[in-house]
Formats: sequence, structure tokens, C-alpha cells
Amino acid sequence: MTPLAELTTPALLLDVGVLERNCEAMAERAARHGVALRPHLKTAKSAEVARRATRGQGGGLTVSTVAEAAYFARRGFTDLTYAVGIDANKIEALHGIQRASGARITLLADRIDAVQAANSRARVLGATFRVLLEIDTGGGRGGVGPNDDELLSLAHEVQRSESLSLAGVLTHAGHSYHVQGGTAIRAVAEAERAGAVQAAGRLRAAGMPVDVVSVGSTPTAVCAQTLEGVTEMRPGVYTFFDLDQAARGICGVEDIALSVLATVIGHNPRSRRVLIDAGALALSKDQSAAEFRSGLGFGLVCHAGGTVPLPGLCVAELHQEHGLIACDGDGDGDDDGVQAMFRALPVGSRVRVLPHHACMTAAPYDRYHVVEGAGSGVQAVWDKACGWQAGA
Amino acid sequence: MTPLAELTTPALLLDVGVLERNCEAMAERAARHGVALRPHLKTAKSAEVARRATRGQGGGLTVSTVAEAAYFARRGFTDLTYAVGIDANKIEALHGIQRASGARITLLADRIDAVQAANSRARVLGATFRVLLEIDTGGGRGGVGPNDDELLSLAHEVQRSESLSLAGVLTHAGHSYHVQGGTAIRAVAEAERAGAVQAAGRLRAAGMPVDVVSVGSTPTAVCAQTLEGVTEMRPGVYTFFDLDQAARGICGVEDIALSVLATVIGHNPRSRRVLIDAGALALSKDQSAAEFRSGLGFGLVCHAGGTVPLPGLCVAELHQEHGLIACDGDGDGDDDGVQAMFRALPVGSRVRVLPHHACMTAAPYDRYHVVEGAGSGVQAVWDKACGWQAGA
Repeated sequence: MTPLAELTTPALLLDVGVLERNCEAMAERAARHGVALRPHLKTAKSAEVARRATRGQGGGLTVSTVAEAAYFARRGFTDLTYAVGIDANKIEALHGIQRASGARITLLADRIDAVQAANSRARVLGATFRVLLEIDTGGGRGGVGPNDDELLSLAHEVQRSESLSLAGVLTHAGHSYHVQGGTAIRAVAEAERAGAVQAAGRLRAAGMPVDVVSVGSTPTAVCAQTLEGVTEMRPGVYTFFDLDQAARGICGVEDIALSVLATVIGHNPRSRRVLIDAGALALSKDQSAAEFRSGLGFGLVCHAGGTVPLPGLCVAELHQEHGLIACDGDGDGDDDGVQAMFRALPVGSRVRVLPHHACMTAAPYDRYHVVEGAGSGVQAVWDKACGWQAGA
Repeated sequence: MTPLAELTTPALLLDVGVLERNCEAMAERAARHGVALRPHLKTAKSAEVARRATRGQGGGLTVSTVAEAAYFARRGFTDLTYAVGIDANKIEALHGIQRASGARITLLADRIDAVQAANSRARVLGATFRVLLEIDTGGGRGGVGPNDDELLSLAHEVQRSESLSLAGVLTHAGHSYHVQGGTAIRAVAEAERAGAVQAAGRLRAAGMPVDVVSVGSTPTAVCAQTLEGVTEMRPGVYTFFDLDQAARGICGVEDIALSVLATVIGHNPRSRRVLIDAGALALSKDQSAAEFRSGLGFGLVCHAGGTVPLPGLCVAELHQEHGLIACDGDGDGDDDGVQAMFRALPVGSRVRVLPHHACMTAAPYDRYHVVEGAGSGVQAVWDKACGWQAGA
């Protein structure tokens, strides 16, 4: 077991105990609602995480890039939903993945012209794909409205496409990330459910096959009161959680499984900052949680041995490879506070930073260093996908 | 030559003609000031870019990570300044790079304890390193003040370290990124120059060797009126430029060499948005230029054939793998504008997005697709470093 002190920083730490607890809790929620759990692996991009997130489940995953599809297919995950509106130029790569691995990749579409373009490419290649119709239940990103006339014409277009078959409907309540509190999130969850079920009902009434009614986002998965009529949920960030979820009460800070290990490389008494070697690339500039809670800067700071935030400290500034930690009251001439911060974080010591948005922070790394509990060394190294190339 | 239409998106495009023009202009500035140009490759992380940026120069580079040091050393760049305060845990990796490649890596330090820790590790390994002392000329990140007593004790500590030798001083006027207009930037440039020269003078007066007096940032390199007493400059982002530099008049929009190629994957008439497959990971959430210019969103949008921004359009929202383009006046019920945007950007078409901050946008990609001028296809593919592991 490698001590944390021997890792090269910045490094991405993942607490497997917290991860497994988060996975079990979400599996219980899915079971309670009687729906399948098809975790979104855009957050973790890791086969070892996928194994834990699909324990007791059908094994289906959600992915957001061709690179993730290739990565997971190569590691034995053969039921993949690619939950970004299909671009016909990606059909050849997706077909290659299906052929090499035996995987079944389900596509997403909300436009007749995109369906036609995808079908043309697939037909030339002799490929076949299942297609989910994307429903906009209020997120305002992709999708047709549950009541839109286009929904039926879109379904007919898929049904008459030689290389495509209709699998059902999918929606993502992305706006659940911008409301706080159980009541508000429950309302979004109900709009998400009701919209997807309504769209499914209209298709079925028109004689269309709708096997899948897929909803998902971590906030709505946690807060939904009923998922009646839904067949699967696709939360993702719950595997790791983060400050953004904690700021809205979706999880506690103690449920955050992901952190960035950094080294203290300097103290600047003039600017009253502690410098660490984790900057904007290592942490991301995401400050999602600031919508709901102040004082988080670009992340909370903990001693390397655990994930309990040091009171009054946060990463206040980011440069490309530098993070600058400040303490509360540093603008009020609180020299005692600054000196206490310098003493708590000597040069050469290690810290962990809890991120705002786990998906953004984890993305550029190519591996996780796996720990378990406070004071743990590195128990394992897990690979992960990164970037957009279907390489590794 | 691969047509852009055949690339898988998102993809990073680099216009080699603009790159070379930017490199030549900076080389001319350095020559005019009589200083060496040691370009910072943290922006490009690419050997092909480094070759162009060092044409007619000594070949020395600046890097910001061990991964970059390893990448460039392996490709024949043997004079590297690692311009982040040294962490002793990185000494072994840096020594390995020096030994394998014959490269000379110059370190940066601003703390006696960090110097001692680095020296201890180096001595055990039988490694030697040159050291630059970091001077804080107002940026408030790393460095000792030019007048601080510590400057001399720090220099003495390096001089008496068996495995280290003093090379000179280095400063980075990071605060030049937060002022606008020639007068303000010239003032920062002069403070940067004067502080570095003053620190060098104090060291020399104490009998210390100071071969290197290194300053640098793209804004100060462009705007400095004199660099008297300076030996080298280390700008980086000028190779590519970006909206942040353009917003402050450091370059024109036509000087931006970097863009992200994306595919239009949807239109949402309810939210009045065009969806593209380049989101927060492909573009970064950086909005640096917003400090100086409004209406840029997360980037400006151009047709794929060139880099002339389409009037009134920007990437208004980012999700992990989705970008949402909006048009001016979309909140005022300007249906004509929205319909015109939908017509200009049909589903399946390609766009280029000009980034706020080239360093942040380029970082997660593992290659550049090289184009030249409007309407060009892909002339070459250039590899690049990414992440923190000294792997590729």
C-alpha cells in the first residue's frame, strides 16, 4: 500500500468505501421505485466504478462520448446508452465498437433530419442501432416537448428507418441542478417523470413500441417521490458526490468520495495565500456550488489524511497549475488567522481538495488512486477514460 | 488532406499560418528588446509548436508540469525551465528525465525549506539542478519581494546546497491578466522588469552569480517599453492567442490560431438554443474575457470554414458534453433572430468556437488538427502532452 506522501501530485483520490456506500444507496432507491439503475459513467469514466455501480443491476450503463463507449465496451459492458443527440459522423465509430465487442449501443435523437442521417450511415455499414427519443421536460437542452406533434413524426421516422429501431423515450432534468431544497427538486423530479411518461403514453397510443422510459439526474433520483411509469434512472454524479450536491442537501460533505491530493509549494505573506500544485486544470474552474453556498472558493481544503474540511479555508484563486488557499478574514487584517493557516499547512505538506463538480474535476485525469477511510494509503490504481478519442 | 467534415468532433483545430505569424511577431519583439525568448509551452504542450516558437532562438522552453518536461525532453528539447515552485517529491522524476535525455532542467524556488528538501533528494540521487529564485513583482502568487531580506538568505541557501546552483531570478506578472489598456499593462510590465532587475542587482551586489533575469507573460511581453536588465522573456499564450487577449487589445480576433470544431446536434425552439457536441470539457468553463468584454458567453461561434465570428451568436451555456448557442435578443422575443440562427446552423453542420482562454481549452486534448487559412482541410495531426503523468 503506497503512502499518500509518495504520490506525485496533483493526483485524484477516490475513497472506495464512500463510493460503495453511495452506489448501494442509489441501488436501494432504484429498487424501492421498482426501476432499473443505468448509472451514467460520464462522471467516473472507470470500469471499476461501473462494476460497483451496477452490482445487482442489469449491467447497462449510460455514456456521453464515443471514447467512453469504446472504453466500457472493451471492458465487457455491452449494454450502453449513448445519451447525447446522435451526430451521423459518429455512426462509423459506434458501429466499430459494436462489431468489435458485441455491445449494443442505444442512440438518442430528437430530430427527423438527424435520424435520417444516422440511418443512412448505418445502412451503408450494415449496422443496426436502437434509438431513444429525447424528451425535453423543462431542461431546455435537447429533446422535443412531451406534447409536441413532432414526437409522433419522429417516432414514425425511426420506425421506418431500415437500420434503426425504436426503444422508447429518455429525458434528463438538467434544471434540477439549479434548484435547491427538497420541495423544489421534487417538483422537477415529478415534471421529469410526468413528461417522460406522457410522451411514452402518446407513442403507445399510436401503436409504437416503448420498452424504455428513462429519466435521470442525481438530484431527481434522490428526491423523486414516485417513478410510476418509468423503467430506468440514469444518475451519475452520486457515485462520487461533490460540493455542488452537498450545497443543496442532496448529500453530506462526508459522502464525497472524490478529492484531489496536492502539495503545499509555498506561502505568500504579502498576498496571504498558501500555494498548492493543483490549479485550474487539476481542480477545474467549476464553481457550481456557489449558486447555493458561499465561502467555497474553488474547493474546500482538508489535511491529506482525510476529507474533513479545515474551518475557514478554501481555494480562493486558480492559475493553470497553481491553487491559492486563503482563510476567512484575510481581507480584514487577520494576521493571526493567516499565520495559523501557514502553520497548519507547512511547505511540503499535503492537502486534499474537495471539488465543486466531480464530473469536471475527474475528467482530465487518466487514473484514480484508490483509498479507503481516513489515514489510508493507496490500495489500488484504477484506469479511466479521458478525452474524446476511442483509443485506450 | 482530410476535409473538416470527416473529423470526429469535438476536435481541436490549430491554424499553422496564424501560429507562425504569432511566433514571428514575438521573436521580433524579443530581438528588439535584446532578450532571449524562452516560450512557455504550458499553453500548447506540443513539440511542433515548440519548434516554431523557438525558431531562431536558443531552443530553451518553459514548462509547468513534470509531464511537459518529460514530453519535451524526449523530443529533443534539452534546456527546460520548470517554472512552478519546486516540490521535493518531483525531484526523482525530474532527475530521471535529465538522465534519460541529457536535458538540463532549471528549477524555481522561493523558500529555504523547499530548497533544502529539494537538495536532500537530489543529493541522494546524485542529481544536480540549476535554480532560479522566484520574485513576486506584484502578482501575489509565488516569490519573495525584490526587497525582502529573505532573498539573500535564499540565494545563500542555494549556493551552499551541494546539488543545486544559482542561475538567477524569475518573475511572472500574473496580474497583467487583470488590467486592460496599453497604459495599465505597460505599468505592470515595468513593475515586472524593475522588480526582477532590482532583485538581480541585490544578489550581484552580494557577490552572487545571476546569469538569468527572466520575466514574462504575454501581455507584458507585448506591451513592455523597455526590458533593460532582463535576459529572457517567457510568454506562452501568444502562440495561440484567445478571446481573453483580444478583449484587452493584446491581439485581434484574427490572430487567434486555436478553435474547437463542433457539430450541430440539435435545435431547441423552446429554449431558443442551437446544441453542439462541444461542452464544458471540450471548451472549458473559463470566461476570463468577461472581465473586459460582454457578449462572449463561453466562446464565439464561426462557420467551420474560418474564424470570423457570426454576429450576435455565442455559446451561452455549457453542460458536460453539450454547448448551447444563443443569439442576441433571444430574451426579447426576437423570433426572427432565432429562426435566422437555426437556418445558419442546420443540424449536422459544423462550427468553430473561439475560446476565452487557449491554455484551458487546449489542455484536455491529446492532439491538434492542423489547418491553414479559411476553407482548409486537415494538413497534419500534431501530438501533445496532457495530464500530469510523465507517460507519453
